[in-house]
Amino acid sequence: MSKNRVKKEIHLEHSSLKFPLPEGLLKELSAELHSMNEYPSGDDYDTLRTKLAEYTGTPADNILPANGSDEVIEAVTRAFGSKLILIPVPTFSQYEVSANRNGFKKKLVPCLKGYHYQLNYSRDDLKQASLVWICNPNNPTGSPIQREDIINILNDSPGIVVVDECNYEYLGETVVDLIDEFPNLVVSRSFSKNFGLAGFRLGFALSSPRNIHEIAHYCQVFRVNRMAEAAGCKVLKYLDYFQKIWQEIALVREYFISGMKGIGIEVFPSRSNFVLADFVTEEKTRRAWQYLREKNVFTCPAWGEECTGLGKNFIRFTISNKEEMGLVLRLLTDFQKTILE
Amino acid sequence: MSKNRVKKEIHLEHSSLKFPLPEGLLKELSAELHSMNEYPSGDDYDTLRTKLAEYTGTPADNILPANGSDEVIEAVTRAFGSKLILIPVPTFSQYEVSANRNGFKKKLVPCLKGYHYQLNYSRDDLKQASLVWICNPNNPTGSPIQREDIINILNDSPGIVVVDECNYEYLGETVVDLIDEFPNLVVSRSFSKNFGLAGFRLGFALSSPRNIHEIAHYCQVFRVNRMAEAAGCKVLKYLDYFQKIWQEIALVREYFISGMKGIGIEVFPSRSNFVLADFVTEEKTRRAWQYLREKNVFTCPAWGEECTGLGKNFIRFTISNKEEMGLVLRLLTDFQKTILE
Repeated sequence: MSKNRVKKEIHLEHSSLKFPLPEGLLKELSAELHSMNEYPSGDDYDTLRTKLAEYTGTPADNILPANGSDEVIEAVTRAFGSKLILIPVPTFSQYEVSANRNGFKKKLVPCLKGYHYQLNYSRDDLKQASLVWICNPNNPTGSPIQREDIINILNDSPGIVVVDECNYEYLGETVVDLIDEFPNLVVSRSFSKNFGLAGFRLGFALSSPRNIHEIAHYCQVFRVNRMAEAAGCKVLKYLDYFQKIWQEIALVREYFISGMKGIGIEVFPSRSNFVLADFVTEEKTRRAWQYLREKNVFTCPAWGEECTGLGKNFIRFTISNKEEMGLVLRLLTDFQKTILE
Repeated sequence: MSKNRVKKEIHLEHSSLKFPLPEGLLKELSAELHSMNEYPSGDDYDTLRTKLAEYTGTPADNILPANGSDEVIEAVTRAFGSKLILIPVPTFSQYEVSANRNGFKKKLVPCLKGYHYQLNYSRDDLKQASLVWICNPNNPTGSPIQREDIINILNDSPGIVVVDECNYEYLGETVVDLIDEFPNLVVSRSFSKNFGLAGFRLGFALSSPRNIHEIAHYCQVFRVNRMAEAAGCKVLKYLDYFQKIWQEIALVREYFISGMKGIGIEVFPSRSNFVLADFVTEEKTRRAWQYLREKNVFTCPAWGEECTGLGKNFIRFTISNKEEMGLVLRLLTDFQKTILE
């Protein structure tokens, strides 16, 4: 068993990018450090918004940069959530955290049937809600949401519908092109995961200038720090580098999924950079999580703070490179044998 | 006149540090860049809080790091401001901005008599308020607040009293030692100005663990970015370097104040890194501000977004090095002559 002991810690608990930032970007950012005694640019992030506009194909007036998409979630909740908030569970925890923080009424709508996650909002719910959450691909299941399902919800909702696309770059599908058509649509994006800027914190909202104005009301002037601002402006020069990584992650994800099935662990089909695995009972899940921890492999268990409305028999694995994921598979193979003994 | 034209722009509009960061710190931070693909430490900022505890002489459990002191102001307002907020004007704008953002009742209490700023809260006001602001030294006047005045207010207030000490390092006086004695005291500090970390955003609140818990409720888990976290931990190694700069700023400030008086411009006595000057009429103030702008000197006018409750005939100058402040004095000497023509 000790032959599988991992010497270097493997951190798969957060869904940040498990690949290095490009050397060129690191050099550019290093050159920015001397100016960090000055505040962020104070121009309402004009330069950054122009770059994000080019990348998303959306005018700069439709874009609001924020201190990570957590800040987008909080500001959107404060702006639109006062009547009723719909949350499709299991999903990312911060929608419910923000609802609770503001003391707003919420309804958690179960959307899971077996390993299939599908939005399950009733027309009645939608008619009453002032804010409707959709996470695409969903966290922690990795499930993609069909575009027509989102359009149906937009049509049925008098309230604001937020599509959290913080893992858009793995899915490759977006509804950002629908912003002009649907004045109730807000899209949330992030550079934390896909562009490896989690440490700097950089999320952004895309919507009509009117909605953006209402969301911005709940944000600080200097909410995005000067390094995040610089990194967001510069990182898109390295798009090729990141695109190759995203392709690699998709390949390793499928390798990991088929490996897991091979050793008898059921997983959700995923279009994100993580895979949710079913360890059947809470006791076995805790044993697996602990087993991996003792081997220096850190994962995201269902009882952590990442998700709302998930049973206790799941572990989420962020996809790293093939070597590390192969090692995790070998450890889980050993674990499965331990269980049978 | 053109002999005084400033080739390099001089930015005195923000109260950030106008001196370079130490080379050693820049090197250390450069080495941190490669890890920015990971989220902030996620340990509730334990390491950072330990460093801030050493610096302030307050236990780590009494400390809450935030995304600049703007976030402290917003979170404190949300936690305690719902009944009535007292704001001593003229003062920093964000107390009122946060009150308005949350739709809370506020009372602006005039505290200026000539060039003397003194807290002017009535016992009746204090009895009714749930949140009382004190800025020490006050922004934009630079005025110090007497410790006994703060203690009297703490005694007379059933609500929370926040002492914003974000320019503590220039004043050298604090009430942080009173936190145990007064359960209604919150102190707000910042590393933006004095330690030159404005670009990273790093403020923090100090209070009883109970108050800290209530304030933290309104903050994001990953509110402080990973670079700010690293910078906050490392910067205190360079305390000697910064202490010399603070001494230098105090000397240049007095040189600037006496220079201004010499050319007939009244200024407020200041214990901060900025000086507020009185240009008597709004028209003359606009002309002076514009005159400096055309010469590439940028300053903070009373009609900007920095302050609440200030007349329109003031300009605030952040203190830079002696060379730059000497240049500003020469430009203003020329300007005074222009006015007389």
